[in-house]
Amino acid sequence: MKNTATLLISCPDRKGIVATVANFLYRNGGNILHADQHLDRNLGLFFTRIEWDMTDFKLTKKDIVKKFTPTARDFKMEWRLEYSNYLPKVAILVSKEEHCLSDLLSRYKNREISCLIPFVFSNHSNVKDLVEFYGIKFPHMPINGSNRKSVEEFILKLLDKDSIDLVVLAKYMQILSPDFIHRYKNRIINIHHSFLPSFIGAKPYHQAYQRGVKIIGATSHYVTEELDNGPIIEQDIIRISHRDTVERLISKGKDLEKIVLSRAVRWHLENRILIYGNKTVVFD
Amino acid sequence: MKNTATLLISCPDRKGIVATVANFLYRNGGNILHADQHLDRNLGLFFTRIEWDMTDFKLTKKDIVKKFTPTARDFKMEWRLEYSNYLPKVAILVSKEEHCLSDLLSRYKNREISCLIPFVFSNHSNVKDLVEFYGIKFPHMPINGSNRKSVEEFILKLLDKDSIDLVVLAKYMQILSPDFIHRYKNRIINIHHSFLPSFIGAKPYHQAYQRGVKIIGATSHYVTEELDNGPIIEQDIIRISHRDTVERLISKGKDLEKIVLSRAVRWHLENRILIYGNKTVVFD
Amino acid sequence: MKNTATLLISCPDRKGIVATVANFLYRNGGNILHADQHLDRNLGLFFTRIEWDMTDFKLTKKDIVKKFTPTARDFKMEWRLEYSNYLPKVAILVSKEEHCLSDLLSRYKNREISCLIPFVFSNHSNVKDLVEFYGIKFPHMPINGSNRKSVEEFILKLLDKDSIDLVVLAKYMQILSPDFIHRYKNRIINIHHSFLPSFIGAKPYHQAYQRGVKIIGATSHYVTEELDNGPIIEQDIIRISHRDTVERLISKGKDLEKIVLSRAVRWHLENRILIYGNKTVVFD
Amino acid sequence: MKNTATLLISCPDRKGIVATVANFLYRNGGNILHADQHLDRNLGLFFTRIEWDMTDFKLTKKDIVKKFTPTARDFKMEWRLEYSNYLPKVAILVSKEEHCLSDLLSRYKNREISCLIPFVFSNHSNVKDLVEFYGIKFPHMPINGSNRKSVEEFILKLLDKDSIDLVVLAKYMQILSPDFIHRYKNRIINIHHSFLPSFIGAKPYHQAYQRGVKIIGATSHYVTEELDNGPIIEQDIIRISHRDTVERLISKGKDLEKIVLSRAVRWHLENRILIYGNKTVVFD
Repeated sequence: MKNTATLLISCPDRKGIVATVANFLYRNGGNILHADQHLDRNLGLFFTRIEWDMTDFKLTKKDIVKKFTPTARDFKMEWRLEYSNYLPKVAILVSKEEHCLSDLLSRYKNREISCLIPFVFSNHSNVKDLVEFYGIKFPHMPINGSNRKSVEEFILKLLDKDSIDLVVLAKYMQILSPDFIHRYKNRIINIHHSFLPSFIGAKPYHQAYQRGVKIIGATSHYVTEELDNGPIIEQDIIRISHRDTVERLISKGKDLEKIVLSRAVRWHLENRILIYGNKTVVFD
Repeated sequence: MKNTATLLISCPDRKGIVATVANFLYRNGGNILHADQHLDRNLGLFFTRIEWDMTDFKLTKKDIVKKFTPTARDFKMEWRLEYSNYLPKVAILVSKEEHCLSDLLSRYKNREISCLIPFVFSNHSNVKDLVEFYGIKFPHMPINGSNRKSVEEFILKLLDKDSIDLVVLAKYMQILSPDFIHRYKNRIINIHHSFLPSFIGAKPYHQAYQRGVKIIGATSHYVTEELDNGPIIEQDIIRISHRDTVERLISKGKDLEKIVLSRAVRWHLENRILIYGNKTVVFD
Repeated sequence: MKNTATLLISCPDRKGIVATVANFLYRNGGNILHADQHLDRNLGLFFTRIEWDMTDFKLTKKDIVKKFTPTARDFKMEWRLEYSNYLPKVAILVSKEEHCLSDLLSRYKNREISCLIPFVFSNHSNVKDLVEFYGIKFPHMPINGSNRKSVEEFILKLLDKDSIDLVVLAKYMQILSPDFIHRYKNRIINIHHSFLPSFIGAKPYHQAYQRGVKIIGATSHYVTEELDNGPIIEQDIIRISHRDTVERLISKGKDLEKIVLSRAVRWHLENRILIYGNKTVVFD
Repeated sequence: MKNTATLLISCPDRKGIVATVANFLYRNGGNILHADQHLDRNLGLFFTRIEWDMTDFKLTKKDIVKKFTPTARDFKMEWRLEYSNYLPKVAILVSKEEHCLSDLLSRYKNREISCLIPFVFSNHSNVKDLVEFYGIKFPHMPINGSNRKSVEEFILKLLDKDSIDLVVLAKYMQILSPDFIHRYKNRIINIHHSFLPSFIGAKPYHQAYQRGVKIIGATSHYVTEELDNGPIIEQDIIRISHRDTVERLISKGKDLEKIVLSRAVRWHLENRILIYGNKTVVFD
């Protein structure tokens, strides 16, 4: 397991940011492994992600926070510090369709995504065996018109109890309340089965079929209060033709959904994503 | 130059269509070179495109029409008969941006698209030299608030005079009147610089930038009265990232626009497209 | 479950083939659901795939064979007749890497691929739990320098006993003997982790990294005696950059491998593939 | 026109490189607009591209060279300094096929590629009118078995006379001598009409057709003495099927060739490419 730290910074653009941060790391024995930056010239905002080797680094996490804070204040930075040896905790919410869930769990087992999954919640019970095969807890509870609020409270307690860092909606066909979204702001990833902003809402493959598009897509995004309108993390597409029925669109789309969701989860867990406004910077 | 005929048929689905058409051609000495068919099971509609060698075929065009008409009536067919040795006449309408025009003219000269282009019309004059270099007439006329109607009449006269079969809008930034569209129904192809139905209307690259999508596209479609809502012929996409400014989106998009428009024009000229409802069948 | 029959035909091109086959089906009450054809003009070969509804069809399988054989002989056809209600039997061979296996089994369970999988064989034991979770037998046996021949005989017996129709090599890192390949000619599908014919043989991702390509791919193909040289069924690609290490190529490639293999398996099971020479016709 | 300078550096990896370079620019008033870096951990090599605004920068080009040289020596850097207000001089070599040439000239006129093209050389004369339409000199000379060497000398003189920085082979179907290649090392860009390393050499589309691949590609690369084996700059692909004849592969491939070549030329002119070993780093 690699032993690195990653600094993610956004701040107003200004001369000397790179020099200051690079000096700070250099003076303390940090060997930079990856560094990437982005400048949004319209907004005058600067973003950077720097990952360095901790082997010879002289400062503890506490030291870094203490010594870097004045610099951060000076440059008006929003910043985060992440360690590669911390295993983020992820909960998956799912309804009946299991292709995304099955794909994520297989990647989890094969360490393609690096995290801990304490539980999977569903409003159905059909994926029970699958989840338990992977040694994961499976709290589940049907949702109907009257218990929506209490189920959410139940989930929130589970999230809280396991100190969940990231919630993944792997085809969870329920709308979360503004309160839930607010509490996990920028920490809920959803997969929508269309090339957003086309075909927002229900039955996007049916909408695509009706419109007669020649390409369909899938979009992973952070969940915000406005439906299917959060910051987009990743999209991918596949070509279709007049021969493709709605059923075949659904089938072709499943492969997109799996890949597009898993990329978003992996990038989030690797601390590669910075959110600003309603957009994302995804450092490669 | 190949000597073939192509029959394009749509009709309600029913047993025996293929057998009947194939027998008709076989009995008259037709060797089928390409045959493709499509069944829309929801609508119960059958579509076919059959191209055959005319070398040993016993019937003249007139004969075919005469002998095939009863069959067509029996099966309630809408049908067209096209000959490969007829060179369709195409007019291009363009505004200031010349990349699509330049691309089409280069393909025209190199016979990648098989047609005759009697003229290019523009509401600007900047592409004059380019058009005339290819030996094509260049009627042009500025459009302003008050002369829109008379310019359209001018264009319609030109189209009529040269017996134009297809009108290509190669970045023509003017909206055509319902009357114009009606007169060239299913014979006007436009290129829209977005992945429709996303980003309808003005400045789609700016809209895409604002929304923070990770992929942009272009769409060629037949023009109908409702803006950017006609039957889609072809779409293509390119991946973008947070690094891409609006200027770079525009630049990347140009390559899409050229290709997506030229494919639509070529397929239309090769009689490969059937329109039904608001969709297209594009036979490969 | 749909009740259809599919006729797959290859023969020398000649006038009247379509008419003859269409008449045969029409006379016997067959309603054609899908028909596709291809003409290789260089070789003068004609290919067709016709699927029709059996509901009102008057002939039994035996009848069809009897009545169609003279026609087939007359046109020098190679032909096959397949029924949608027959569930083909598939065996999977796998080594240590489980991503393709896991993906196939998940699709199997969710009926994205329509077949029966009596067993998975491996020369390792690490996937035992996974295979058994899906209720499938898991014969396994290590392979070393001296027992290669006897393991093959063991596998052949298993294939024979379960009347296996298709063998899928889902990252099976052993080379099959010519005899094995011969006995399952055109019925063994392999996934190779490169864009063939680039990077044949071992460690294609390492080769791709060394060569500095900007795109990597995966290829599914029928296995022939010549390594990685059989008829290609499907390929797909993903863009890479100088940032991608060999490890990241391997990781990105896994998603390609899963999709490209599963498409090949599905198309084979749907009787959509015709092999001729060293190429495939894949009817859509 | 923007007024920036760009520093391109490769050197053995070592702590402090970023800090040192960033400090140098900061101390002298440079506002960094783009910075990108890459670490090849296998080879222990570090690469960076830094572009900064010259508006408030205190040093002249001469000063930079003088002041930066000791640092560069200390870190064992290979480095280049480029100014955005220098217009590189490009010569195009072409044979009979004009689609890439036509595309490049159209982009040149529309300032999609920023350079000066003093001349286009051809061993044919068919593109004369096209080249001259764009106001570019068109020296041309047929090549046969006996005059190959003298034609090369003629071209070399032209290149020398116009101080050409980059030679673009836009479907130039002649092999350049090792001496020619050596004199313009890393400054000759070729387009090969296959997905390298597949189908090296002559008639790649015919080779692709024979092999039955499902995707074809094009590759732009720097020319080295070994045929089609130089550092790859860019590749792109398009899906094909059994329906595509060699002629259609050629036609589909042309669109790839145009785009893939033009991207390589643009990136080279924007000083985004670093070559090392037989690979390229293309900074985005």
